[in-house]
Amino acid sequence: MNRNKLIEIIKQRKSLLCVGLDPDFDLIPNHLKENKDWIFDFNKAIIDSTKDLCVAYKPNLAFYEKYYAQSFFENTTCDAVTVSPYMGSDSIEPFLTYKDKWAVILTLTSNPGSKDLQLTEVNDKLTIGRSDIQNRQCWMKLFEHVSFQIKEWGTSDNTMLVVGATKADYFQKIRKIVPDHFLLVPGVGTQGGNLDVVLENGLNSDFGLLINVGRDVIYSGSGQDFDTKARERSIVYQTLMEKTLKDKKLI
Amino acid sequence: MNRNKLIEIIKQRKSLLCVGLDPDFDLIPNHLKENKDWIFDFNKAIIDSTKDLCVAYKPNLAFYEKYYAQSFFENTTCDAVTVSPYMGSDSIEPFLTYKDKWAVILTLTSNPGSKDLQLTEVNDKLTIGRSDIQNRQCWMKLFEHVSFQIKEWGTSDNTMLVVGATKADYFQKIRKIVPDHFLLVPGVGTQGGNLDVVLENGLNSDFGLLINVGRDVIYSGSGQDFDTKARERSIVYQTLMEKTLKDKKLI
Repeated sequence: MNRNKLIEIIKQRKSLLCVGLDPDFDLIPNHLKENKDWIFDFNKAIIDSTKDLCVAYKPNLAFYEKYYAQSFFENTTCDAVTVSPYMGSDSIEPFLTYKDKWAVILTLTSNPGSKDLQLTEVNDKLTIGRSDIQNRQCWMKLFEHVSFQIKEWGTSDNTMLVVGATKADYFQKIRKIVPDHFLLVPGVGTQGGNLDVVLENGLNSDFGLLINVGRDVIYSGSGQDFDTKARERSIVYQTLMEKTLKDKKLI
Repeated sequence: MNRNKLIEIIKQRKSLLCVGLDPDFDLIPNHLKENKDWIFDFNKAIIDSTKDLCVAYKPNLAFYEKYYAQSFFENTTCDAVTVSPYMGSDSIEPFLTYKDKWAVILTLTSNPGSKDLQLTEVNDKLTIGRSDIQNRQCWMKLFEHVSFQIKEWGTSDNTMLVVGATKADYFQKIRKIVPDHFLLVPGVGTQGGNLDVVLENGLNSDFGLLINVGRDVIYSGSGQDFDTKARERSIVYQTLMEKTLKDKKLI
């Protein structure tokens, strides 16, 4: 569907209507509730009866938020899901209602595009006046504002922060805002993040760090023995971590 | 997995390592490439060989971005996907490489949590000095900064902006920044957005609006005739739109 085609359809139908397909079990007609395929049948009936009146169909965001959290946390064994903070507290909430599950919230990522929003200077008016932050400036980078927000949205028992390994000074700032939270740290290894710097600035008395290494482990070999190579590379990382944890008397 | 259990596992394994599972076809060993289940087999081999050395596994973000865009745009007939701008340009790019497909980027949403990030004041340093914006102030709300960014990331042929219907003044500001883009507008109907206000402030010479109505259409009836009711409600919206489009001589 290109722009011209879209404009053409709007002209033909004389309509800008996009129908949000949001099949909520509590709201659908009773006669559909015994139907295993209620989502399909409900959506199909709505589409059949409105398709000449609207120009698009869209499953709406709230629907996805609700069932997205549910499908991850009820139908799989995964413990955590990475989510974006852009829509704010009520978009994170559905992920916080599951016991022993985690919302891992994008805060400072390690990709080049992180500068586009995360490094902009914001006036953090919303949190001014709270007792624990009286002495800090109200101007900060967006990722710091997000860190403060995350602290309010959840607890260190159900939220973690994604914090890229590539910038040590930013790392310290975040650790100061959320001293107790676990940080999930991408960017070590191939992307150039330094493990020692991450450990030095990120560890707390409960460890507080999960250090993600991707390509540097899983593609360290490219032959039949790729799994052995991956193991050897994991041992290198684990050994470095064990040494630091012992040096710091954390284990 | 709760916090105590996680801390326990870190102590046992003496490791903070999280292995990123990022099965990239170009990078996996050759002997797996003829295998239909290469993703499963690759991941399984990596997990089997590292599971005593790490405390978590995580399919990494870049992997999801790449295959997420691909799975939506190559395996379905959908024309557009809603995406978050928080990670910046390179997280949107994969969605812009498909002809006649759209990235619909969250800009100003209609949920209460939109205030948490989208309404914070930012210093839009990044875009200062561009010829078309010399006369505007460098302080603006984050959603305005995002609008400027979207204009740079893509074109009015491959990006739309999600702009909630609930605030007319914000609507005008966004339309000024992106005069040519289509805006996808949730929040009309049940959430209280006013259709006339949206049309008045959002229409451009190419229409430029897709107005999403969810619950107010699809749950207008709750009996056997729910589809007829949905149709009747769609006709109400379509008729109002047609009238305004004719009044404005757009059709």
